[in-house]
Amino acid sequence: MKQIVECVPNFSEGRRQEVIDRIVAAMAQAPGARVLDVQFDVDHNRSVVTLVGAPEAALEAAFQGMASAAQLIDMDHHHGAHPRMGATDVVPFVPVQGVTMDDCVALARRLGERAGAELGIPVYLYEEAATRPERRNLADVRRGEYEGLKVEIATDPGRVPDFGPAQLGTAGATAIGARPPLIAFNVYLNTADVAPAKAIAKAVRLSSGGLRFVKALGLLVEGQAQISMNLTDYRQTPIHRVVEMIRAEAARLGLTITRCEVVGLLPAQALFDAAQFYLQLHDLSADQILENRL
Amino acid sequence: MKQIVECVPNFSEGRRQEVIDRIVAAMAQAPGARVLDVQFDVDHNRSVVTLVGAPEAALEAAFQGMASAAQLIDMDHHHGAHPRMGATDVVPFVPVQGVTMDDCVALARRLGERAGAELGIPVYLYEEAATRPERRNLADVRRGEYEGLKVEIATDPGRVPDFGPAQLGTAGATAIGARPPLIAFNVYLNTADVAPAKAIAKAVRLSSGGLRFVKALGLLVEGQAQISMNLTDYRQTPIHRVVEMIRAEAARLGLTITRCEVVGLLPAQALFDAAQFYLQLHDLSADQILENRL
Repeated sequence: MKQIVECVPNFSEGRRQEVIDRIVAAMAQAPGARVLDVQFDVDHNRSVVTLVGAPEAALEAAFQGMASAAQLIDMDHHHGAHPRMGATDVVPFVPVQGVTMDDCVALARRLGERAGAELGIPVYLYEEAATRPERRNLADVRRGEYEGLKVEIATDPGRVPDFGPAQLGTAGATAIGARPPLIAFNVYLNTADVAPAKAIAKAVRLSSGGLRFVKALGLLVEGQAQISMNLTDYRQTPIHRVVEMIRAEAARLGLTITRCEVVGLLPAQALFDAAQFYLQLHDLSADQILENRL
Repeated sequence: MKQIVECVPNFSEGRRQEVIDRIVAAMAQAPGARVLDVQFDVDHNRSVVTLVGAPEAALEAAFQGMASAAQLIDMDHHHGAHPRMGATDVVPFVPVQGVTMDDCVALARRLGERAGAELGIPVYLYEEAATRPERRNLADVRRGEYEGLKVEIATDPGRVPDFGPAQLGTAGATAIGARPPLIAFNVYLNTADVAPAKAIAKAVRLSSGGLRFVKALGLLVEGQAQISMNLTDYRQTPIHRVVEMIRAEAARLGLTITRCEVVGLLPAQALFDAAQFYLQLHDLSADQILENRL
């Protein structure tokens, strides 16, 4: 099986198209890396790039993206609605196929070491790659943002970076880490009332007592109630468990699910897991899927 | 997306391991072809090889297998429980990825033409590749087997082959065709009584009024009732429809499904289809599956 890693770097540029293009071009030049998607937002002044490749290719692409962003983005002149601390703000590696989370942690460390040494960028390892429990959560790592970190990095021993100097240049600092694939998953109900969607979102999400790897909001989308979710670890909180919990909560209110949707990409395994659950294929092995034998 | 064809040639040799090995080795030498599985049966005196590859690679491998079998197997001395008419008895091409059924029909015709011209083997095109309605069904093509065909091929205008001479050598004749992937799928019930399995098998299979692409038998397997099926076209009769029909029939008898199983291989798409059904992902596109973008 070919080894494939996904890498989703976020850059602090969402307004100057030519800057985004140059950063993406720098990454796309890494042999074996493939840019699948580029999204940017003017209000956030931020872009999110999705690329895939063999581990070494993803590492090289991410490094080239960081080098390019450091040249082209001056954080002293960056403003945007989204919290950020660096030109390359965050770089997660995601295992897709034939690689483990540990492999992605190793990639995060190697990228951090190289960016610290060759680009002089302070790097904080986060999530699965974190070296301290208080650095697992990205929001904690990014606390105070670029402006706050500029002062604290030199004065607060708790903010010494994992790699690179304890000093902030105009490229700021970067959080580099490893995490499971994130699935953006929405469930629609047969009602134009937002209240049931809000109630069910509250029931299923971690923050109010629900499932460990679910973030959820109740919304009205084109007049239809929607439970909008991020599933942050489908291996531990699988899609079917979320959907069946929502189905049960909806039924109690006399409602049904009219349809679900995936926004963006998801790994094939997440769908295999759902098929295996509903079809009760307790003993199905990955080897039985023809495409896995190619 | 890489083009992949599956090819499942059946050879009239299930006893002499060294003959099977030589035929398989001849096929494995085709560049880009990969033998996934070899099964043989002493009583049937027959072997079934599963190989995959790009269309050209699968074609070349199948031809080399036919050439090798023609040299090594003498049908005048072949005996076995399974109906057969040639050293290479049947060669189906199956679309797996990035190829259509029409592509597989074209492969079947090209292989037939080449085997007829270069090996002097009479070839009958069957199933999706059939040139006459009465040749769609393999059992009809193979009627009379090697011994019967030896006489009829020269005398009955209805048995003139699609390619090759109207005359049978010791390699016999070969049926070459194209068909959808076949999924061997079993459903277990929470009973040690075979009667419900037989009744449900009868309800779901085509031959007694059930679903178009389902063959089914009710059995007892290790003391548990099992509905043993061949799903001959999962695109038109999807797995979930079969399982839910069985679930409903079982429920009427106060029974439940304890588990299901796939015997051998199945295409990823069959599992994607099930996930899409149960998760109500009406608008999911193949492009959203990360692995399809690689």
